[in-house]
Amino acid sequence: MIEYRNLRVAILGGGSVGSQVASLLIEHGEELAARVGAGIELVGVAVRDVKAKRDGTIPKHLLTTDAESLILGADIVVELIGGLEPARTYILQALNSGADVVTANKAVLATHGPELFEAAEQVGAQLYYEAAVGGAIPIIRPLRDSLAGDRVKRILGIVNGTTNYILDRMDTWGDDFDEALAEATRLGYAEADPTADIEGYDAAQKAAILASLAFHTIVPLDAVYREGMTSITRELVHSARKAGYVVKLLAICERLTDAQTGVEGVSARVHPALVPLDHPLAAVHGANNAVFVEAEAAGSLMFYGAGAGGVETASAVLGDLVSAARRHVAGGPGVAESTHANLPVLPISRAITRYQITLSVADQPGVLAAIATLFADHGVSVEAVEQSVSAGRDGQADARPTATLVIVTHEASESSLASTVTALAASPVVSSVVSVLRVEGL
Amino acid sequence: MIEYRNLRVAILGGGSVGSQVASLLIEHGEELAARVGAGIELVGVAVRDVKAKRDGTIPKHLLTTDAESLILGADIVVELIGGLEPARTYILQALNSGADVVTANKAVLATHGPELFEAAEQVGAQLYYEAAVGGAIPIIRPLRDSLAGDRVKRILGIVNGTTNYILDRMDTWGDDFDEALAEATRLGYAEADPTADIEGYDAAQKAAILASLAFHTIVPLDAVYREGMTSITRELVHSARKAGYVVKLLAICERLTDAQTGVEGVSARVHPALVPLDHPLAAVHGANNAVFVEAEAAGSLMFYGAGAGGVETASAVLGDLVSAARRHVAGGPGVAESTHANLPVLPISRAITRYQITLSVADQPGVLAAIATLFADHGVSVEAVEQSVSAGRDGQADARPTATLVIVTHEASESSLASTVTALAASPVVSSVVSVLRVEGL
Repeated sequence: MIEYRNLRVAILGGGSVGSQVASLLIEHGEELAARVGAGIELVGVAVRDVKAKRDGTIPKHLLTTDAESLILGADIVVELIGGLEPARTYILQALNSGADVVTANKAVLATHGPELFEAAEQVGAQLYYEAAVGGAIPIIRPLRDSLAGDRVKRILGIVNGTTNYILDRMDTWGDDFDEALAEATRLGYAEADPTADIEGYDAAQKAAILASLAFHTIVPLDAVYREGMTSITRELVHSARKAGYVVKLLAICERLTDAQTGVEGVSARVHPALVPLDHPLAAVHGANNAVFVEAEAAGSLMFYGAGAGGVETASAVLGDLVSAARRHVAGGPGVAESTHANLPVLPISRAITRYQITLSVADQPGVLAAIATLFADHGVSVEAVEQSVSAGRDGQADARPTATLVIVTHEASESSLASTVTALAASPVVSSVVSVLRVEGL
Repeated sequence: MIEYRNLRVAILGGGSVGSQVASLLIEHGEELAARVGAGIELVGVAVRDVKAKRDGTIPKHLLTTDAESLILGADIVVELIGGLEPARTYILQALNSGADVVTANKAVLATHGPELFEAAEQVGAQLYYEAAVGGAIPIIRPLRDSLAGDRVKRILGIVNGTTNYILDRMDTWGDDFDEALAEATRLGYAEADPTADIEGYDAAQKAAILASLAFHTIVPLDAVYREGMTSITRELVHSARKAGYVVKLLAICERLTDAQTGVEGVSARVHPALVPLDHPLAAVHGANNAVFVEAEAAGSLMFYGAGAGGVETASAVLGDLVSAARRHVAGGPGVAESTHANLPVLPISRAITRYQITLSVADQPGVLAAIATLFADHGVSVEAVEQSVSAGRDGQADARPTATLVIVTHEASESSLASTVTALAASPVVSSVVSVLRVEGL
């Protein structure tokens, strides 16, 4: 067997994931060396402040504030700082010096991915990012390698643990949104400022990464349609369950044909959606993540596990680190990120989906016919209508009786569905549009 | 960009998977070339009889009976013949000629794996086998690469679609075993001779492959404990559900410490087991497969999808083919199969599990105490007992009343549990041991 010198690994960032990666590298060093065929040496951990209080997981002599020198002396750089800068600059420096880079940084990939992958390709280095989506769940490698000979049609992902925890509590315990969020914060699932999670920014970054990879196409972050989950009430979750659905915040990436132009394109979007109770994603509870993939040949696949957490994310980072190390041992250039398909990214208006629309209407003859006509006029076909009559509202004796209509449509374009809803809101027979939710996974 | 000559791919076997692989290779050729950075050229498909009736998927001029010449001219050989010989010989010839090999052949891997991996390592070639376990589900690559920096503790796998289909029908439709098997045969899920599936031989091969890979240890097929599912009756499935379980045929691979010697080892076994209804594996219906992995850092992961089928298996084969092709483009030797841990493989008697034991006993005072004492004498701790009194059996007026006891134990060694059952069968207060089932996933 050929003997290799030790591979030099630098970690940027001494937070929860960084500490866990350092600790596992030190603890399992011999085992990893045996798996790689070369020693793996942790040469340093770059932090902002060497004197900051730490739990002692990282040996003191490895701490440094000089990230740039550390990068220059490393074969593999593990970027765990997060955010855009200085992460982007450090990753570029590492790649340009010929090091492979492992990152868990979804923000920098979703925003600067093409620049980073281009830099890697130029020098024949490799950028690994399994930990950026779905924590410990292997999803990047299956999409990149296992399905490399297949054609992905659609991805439905629960990729944000915080919002899944909140929605699951609202569904299982009957919490309202604020109660569930407070509990998520108490348990450390939600950050002090939960905006990035509950408004879907985090999920949108992951959607951009998954769509780019799955469709071999650059999908920029600002082409991802995004809708948060703050409009989801306990009542809405409750009536969804009665109708046979559970509400999930989904990242959806799909290949589709633009009905107007006939052009094949891709679409990526994040929004709350109704998922049928018998769909595998409906059984994803708590802060777990799951990614459901539909491929032409492979059929339906699902990848499930813990979506976040320091040690779980560290597992994904170490998997990438071993891949990078094996590549160094084998030699040869990295595999370039494939964007050959270069499909147009279509706006949300071109997406094909279904709506569940809840209307409050006057309970009088002819209303259903009027509404059905309105749907037909917009080219939207109705799959099911359920009507329930309620008594006069608010106990007012003189109030006219109202009925609630719950309508589920067949598939239609978002633009047709949106204009249908606009017309419904303006219709004299509709008192109010109570809710509009997309239905996925049927 | 560097230009590469076309990579020459040979397929051995023109059956269902072979035809699908050939068809996808031809149909998606340009797309695959873009992903690989080199053209992929199908140079031939070796079959036993060129004149046999086929559906025309494989162009006639590619068919040949001369497998050996085909192998010698190929960069990548895809072995889809199945069985031990000539598959083993062909794989060795291919590896020895420096070609990478992709195989879906679980039998040859479980039986001759070490010899084949050794041959690959000698010449720096690579043997890929994602399709050998779980059809289209990516499980080999996640275990080999994604979890390479982690430590797998346990795998619980539903790796045989035929038996899962049968058990699911017995559970969902109340079929008895023969009815469910007949239906599985009618739908093409079961072969004319279903022995390999229902007796667990197929699952045992997959358990050997998964355990070897996950624990970096050679686990020979004959060290895998195997118990089929033919003893599972409709009544058993029904009472399992009432008790909160579903019956699944599981392949179980685990790291464990031999209680007698304190030695750390691994164990692989296949048997029917009770799985709690709220476990993710309980929701795996029909002929689907799923592999549940517990790892030290990553926590619990699950991989789910279609476990068989020509086109699904072809997806996994093509994923491997692309990996092999990328490796040829990048150059350098393959990564050797890692067996560095070399842990002892422990016999089933050392496994730690739980039993659910159903007893028919005389309904008289002191019986429960006698049975509880018997468990304690064998060092087995009881978690729960449920007793139901039945009237005199078979309507005989003079029959003594009997009771049914359903006992679930805490974890104990298989040997203690087995000797407890032997003692129960011999006990004067026990009329009969109705059933003994292992409980997993609690």
